Amino acid sequence: MLIPSGVVLHLTEESADKQRAVLRNALNLLPEVEPGTPIEVVVQGEAICLALPGQVTAGALTEALDAGIALVVCRNSMRSQNLRDKDLISGAVTVTSAVGHLVARQGQGWAYLRP
Amino acid sequence: MLIPSGVVLHLTEESADKQRAVLRNALNLLPEVEPGTPIEVVVQGEAICLALPGQVTAGALTEALDAGIALVVCRNSMRSQNLRDKDLISGAVTVTSAVGHLVARQGQGWAYLRP
Amino acid sequence: MLIPSGVVLHLTEESADKQRAVLRNALNLLPEVEPGTPIEVVVQGEAICLALPGQVTAGALTEALDAGIALVVCRNSMRSQNLRDKDLISGAVTVTSAVGHLVARQGQGWAYLRP
Repeated sequence: MLIPSGVVLHLTEESADKQRAVLRNALNLLPEVEPGTPIEVVVQGEAICLALPGQVTAGALTEALDAGIALVVCRNSMRSQNLRDKDLISGAVTVTSAVGHLVARQGQGWAYLRP
Repeated sequence: MLIPSGVVLHLTEESADKQRAVLRNALNLLPEVEPGTPIEVVVQGEAICLALPGQVTAGALTEALDAGIALVVCRNSMRSQNLRDKDLISGAVTVTSAVGHLVARQGQGWAYLRP
Repeated sequence: MLIPSGVVLHLTEESADKQRAVLRNALNLLPEVEPGTPIEVVVQGEAICLALPGQVTAGALTEALDAGIALVVCRNSMRSQNLRDKDLISGAVTVTSAVGHLVARQGQGWAYLRP
């Protein structure tokens, strides 16, 4: 049995309920994987609002970030929504392309989830 | 070419039409994989109603179970819906966490589908 | 780090907006993968309308096909919609089963995306 090198959770929906559910999924993964396994929530399209300040999902997001889960934001989606780095919360990290990042992670042996 | 060790189909939706479609996908996989390859439908969140008795999906589920497809139910979801083992149909199996299980299966070389 | 042998994007939705977004995702992948890496949009269920002539998505599809992205259509879905090979646009290719194909591709080391 191989141990996944990490886990990406792919999120594209704008719904706050959906975003909270995916953050909850990420938290629920923590006791299920080897300690130190990186877990990333990768947001794309309408879901990138999760990375903006003042959202109703802020509490759930803070809990996930505090637990070590990474929030990864798609620059392609930012550009089409006229968003810049300074518009994002400080905990977010960006990648050129969400889909490119998700493919690269699978190439690195990460598991892929689309909750 | 590697042969996947098994296949997990990830299902979170409550809709009976969606659940029937995923069960149909699982059945359609049988002639496509090596004989004996395990296939699991992993239900989480609102989809765990599929594992309760008296559902309109019961016929489709029985057909899938009779064909050797496994129904795997998330205990995290059961707890949040106040469901216990005895509430589930007898053919269902449970796991601590659907997402944890889906990650572990990928680590074991299983293919992941999110129909 | 392994390089994925290819990428499959799994699409089941009928919505033209969703279909355009997935074609855009496929195009956005091109600069992110090794040159020559095959990319397939695999359509199933209601999404197979993407492969019919006269759709509002025709322009976006042509752009993707011209860029070398493959459109792969599920024969199980065609049969249930009474569609035959001659009903599809000339650029489409067919497989017996979308889910079977997606599993086989993962077995060949392809990355899986469900945008």
